Amino acid sequence: MSDAHKGTGRFSYDGLERDLHERARLGILTSLVANPEGLLFTELKDLCALTDGNLNRHIGKLKESGMVEVWKGFKDNRPQTLCRITKAGRARFLEYIAVLEQVVEDAAAAEHAQKTKPLKGWTPI
Amino acid sequence: MSDAHKGTGRFSYDGLERDLHERARLGILTSLVANPEGLLFTELKDLCALTDGNLNRHIGKLKESGMVEVWKGFKDNRPQTLCRITKAGRARFLEYIAVLEQVVEDAAAAEHAQKTKPLKGWTPI
Repeated sequence: MSDAHKGTGRFSYDGLERDLHERARLGILTSLVANPEGLLFTELKDLCALTDGNLNRHIGKLKESGMVEVWKGFKDNRPQTLCRITKAGRARFLEYIAVLEQVVEDAAAAEHAQKTKPLKGWTPI
Repeated sequence: MSDAHKGTGRFSYDGLERDLHERARLGILTSLVANPEGLLFTELKDLCALTDGNLNRHIGKLKESGMVEVWKGFKDNRPQTLCRITKAGRARFLEYIAVLEQVVEDAAAAEHAQKTKPLKGWTPI
């Protein structure tokens, strides 16, 4: 084991909080971070390929935890819902992303490591 | 919305397969990719900060799906269990990591975007 890969909990990635580390949440939050001016509910649904019900449920949870804000208004004379990431949500999401970045770096560092070979003196089970 | 962020499903991240995208699995697989010669069960437990039962359960599932192999043998005169990532497991995990990398890039590209401001003509709900 290389020194960089030693230590209790070195690969426990505690920062991957359950409520952010979920595919749909990840998509929603990345969309919103990439569009700080906010996205219409319909845009978000399309970008994340989610159903109305699914997106509603996730947005509700993210609103509860203070990560997104939801606004009602009109666009092109039609009532619309707009979702925006909050300042706190943005900060928390970027902390989470820093942990993901560590995962990617850990894996990339190992990508060109030696191939596996048969093991002498060990029995497969 | 910038052009790079448009398109149906642009943020759906379909490659984040449920059986890899789980904190403990991610830790186990990154540890094993970083140590292609294999890790003892006890080392893996320590690196990922997992209990015996938890690690056993995850290793069992990863073995079932052909991503890891498990060997019995002796080290320092004591019976030990060794886990190694398979060639197929490695390939599949690196595909998954490429999607994570895309998430990190999407978020990083947006990191320095404008701050949120009050919205005129919209009502918070």
